[in-house]
Amino acid sequence: MSVRAPAVVGMRLEEVDTPALILDLGAFETNLRRLSDAVSGRVRVRAHAKTHKCPEIARRQVAAGAVGVCCQKVSEAEAMVEGGIADVLVSNEVVGRGKLERLAALARRAQLGVCVDHADNVRELQAAMQAASARIDVYIELEVGMHRCGVAPGAPAVALARAIAASPDLRFAGIHAYHGRAQHIRSSDERRAVIRSAAAAVRSTKGLLEKSNIPCPIVTGAGSGTFMFEVEMGAWDEIQPGSYVFMDWDYARNEWAPPMPRFEHSLFVLATVMSRPGPDTAILDAGLKASSVDSGMPGVWERPGLVYTRASDEHGWVEIAPRAAAPGLGDKLLLVPGHCDPTVNLYDWYVCVRAGVVEALWPISARGAVY
Amino acid sequence: MSVRAPAVVGMRLEEVDTPALILDLGAFETNLRRLSDAVSGRVRVRAHAKTHKCPEIARRQVAAGAVGVCCQKVSEAEAMVEGGIADVLVSNEVVGRGKLERLAALARRAQLGVCVDHADNVRELQAAMQAASARIDVYIELEVGMHRCGVAPGAPAVALARAIAASPDLRFAGIHAYHGRAQHIRSSDERRAVIRSAAAAVRSTKGLLEKSNIPCPIVTGAGSGTFMFEVEMGAWDEIQPGSYVFMDWDYARNEWAPPMPRFEHSLFVLATVMSRPGPDTAILDAGLKASSVDSGMPGVWERPGLVYTRASDEHGWVEIAPRAAAPGLGDKLLLVPGHCDPTVNLYDWYVCVRAGVVEALWPISARGAVY
Repeated sequence: MSVRAPAVVGMRLEEVDTPALILDLGAFETNLRRLSDAVSGRVRVRAHAKTHKCPEIARRQVAAGAVGVCCQKVSEAEAMVEGGIADVLVSNEVVGRGKLERLAALARRAQLGVCVDHADNVRELQAAMQAASARIDVYIELEVGMHRCGVAPGAPAVALARAIAASPDLRFAGIHAYHGRAQHIRSSDERRAVIRSAAAAVRSTKGLLEKSNIPCPIVTGAGSGTFMFEVEMGAWDEIQPGSYVFMDWDYARNEWAPPMPRFEHSLFVLATVMSRPGPDTAILDAGLKASSVDSGMPGVWERPGLVYTRASDEHGWVEIAPRAAAPGLGDKLLLVPGHCDPTVNLYDWYVCVRAGVVEALWPISARGAVY
Repeated sequence: MSVRAPAVVGMRLEEVDTPALILDLGAFETNLRRLSDAVSGRVRVRAHAKTHKCPEIARRQVAAGAVGVCCQKVSEAEAMVEGGIADVLVSNEVVGRGKLERLAALARRAQLGVCVDHADNVRELQAAMQAASARIDVYIELEVGMHRCGVAPGAPAVALARAIAASPDLRFAGIHAYHGRAQHIRSSDERRAVIRSAAAAVRSTKGLLEKSNIPCPIVTGAGSGTFMFEVEMGAWDEIQPGSYVFMDWDYARNEWAPPMPRFEHSLFVLATVMSRPGPDTAILDAGLKASSVDSGMPGVWERPGLVYTRASDEHGWVEIAPRAAAPGLGDKLLLVPGHCDPTVNLYDWYVCVRAGVVEALWPISARGAVY
């Protein structure tokens, strides 16, 4: 059922079938370096693989200094371990017997971590590990302001940590503190302020853990929009940026100011003009099934005056400004996805391009791995 | 790279791993019958396979009386022909040499049709068919008000039809007249009024074709929100409903009044409550990668007082009203997708359920077939 690749190695970019997911290797490698340079060894990097779902990329992140990757789902973690990644944190709760059995099986094959936010889940997790004779690193997920999962800072967090520490097959590994909504706050100062308040919750909880004689080895968290603030605060030991390798159109709307480095767009959707119904409109062959629009429409890359305004299932509308260079029928355009993670999840292959030529095809092995 | 199925045959629904795409076979079969009963042989039915991307479903539509299916992409048509469907219309323009070569190869294996809206595309299509010694049915796509692809009614349409008729390896098959935006107009009367104006464009163009001695064998078009209006107008020979087999949450917002039949929800996403951060909130393991939100959030099925309010990549927020029955950690809920087509494209399998038991697993063979 897997889809054939839309290109072969050696092909020129303009010959690639469309829609196709294009990775600009030069920009991608720049982004890897830019992260390392910014962090400069002050914290550990555990890159988030939910963004790319691709062991080829994960291996390059590890080669660039990451200690391993994060995943959001057990099936995603399975694909990463299968692809040679030895240290994986499922930065999410895993609930339900079947999933926990798979997690336990995986914990026998790799250094594995997981998050919890509920005592029932700790019991379920311990039972699954015991049944499989496996051990796993367990982090409490701390609610630090994004109002999703997570245990409240203070006493509830300590009680949960104690339950983990008392479970013979779970290793209490520390605190997972991630503020997802902060990543997309436009103002740099506001982003810093939100992370400062998250840092206060982390510090007070860590202090309580120490008072309770529960050692807290690692505080992990942070994303591509804020990680240097977490580094600056000094309360995190490990950061989890994902989107930095690609940089989508929504992230580009953020204000980027020091200490945050600015990353380059490396991920594109190549699309063909399939209709020219009028002088001010081009219709592309890339719609909702080719680029996720949950965070806004994709941007048209380096074609001034062309704006992607609307998407239906398999079509995209591009408005052409009066004096803009209009694309002809059959011309190909590069789009920058509005949101990289769910866009990547639509494709089976990265078409990796350097200097306009296809250099490699990387399988998106964890595409659809949502279980 | 294909993803393992989240269930096995014989399993109970509540044992299915999550997120999973569930097809309620009873409701699905009701929808097949309800379409046949409504149309009652007055026009041909060519069901749209872009909705389901699954030959198992296409074969059941043909068994229920459809002459074949529509597809939007060549790769989707390839999957349908491979899956045993002998008559496929690509109800869309196909632009670019590589795609046209594949279309021509497919035209040698099945009864194939395609749409055009530009004379350059007619020349390109003729060249591809000639090179492959293939023949294909070609429809002019008529712009009838949705402002996407399509040639203007009247003289431009006639000129295009003449170009097709003059091409030795193309058979001029008629007019494709589809008004996509009309499908989701909430008021039944307004939907009828829009289709009446589309019918006027169809009739005037067909009249001009006849005056020009260009026979127009078939007028094809219409979707799940309007098809009985097209039947009522008498200007269409063939209808192309797709979503009727599933009926999504957005379609459910339409006013449904005779002559349109009301279809049942047969498509669901099964999700697990993975966190209960507070008394009024449940977090599900199904977010943007499990259900497309372009037409609104999914609905929570048969759980009064529970509302799915927000999605991030792998999480969904459910608000719990004060006196509603609150789901516990690990409980499973059924969601009705906001928009069925792009949601189906996220999955590899339909988990087909009858009376609460998994009866079959159908592969979504054309998942990701966007080329």
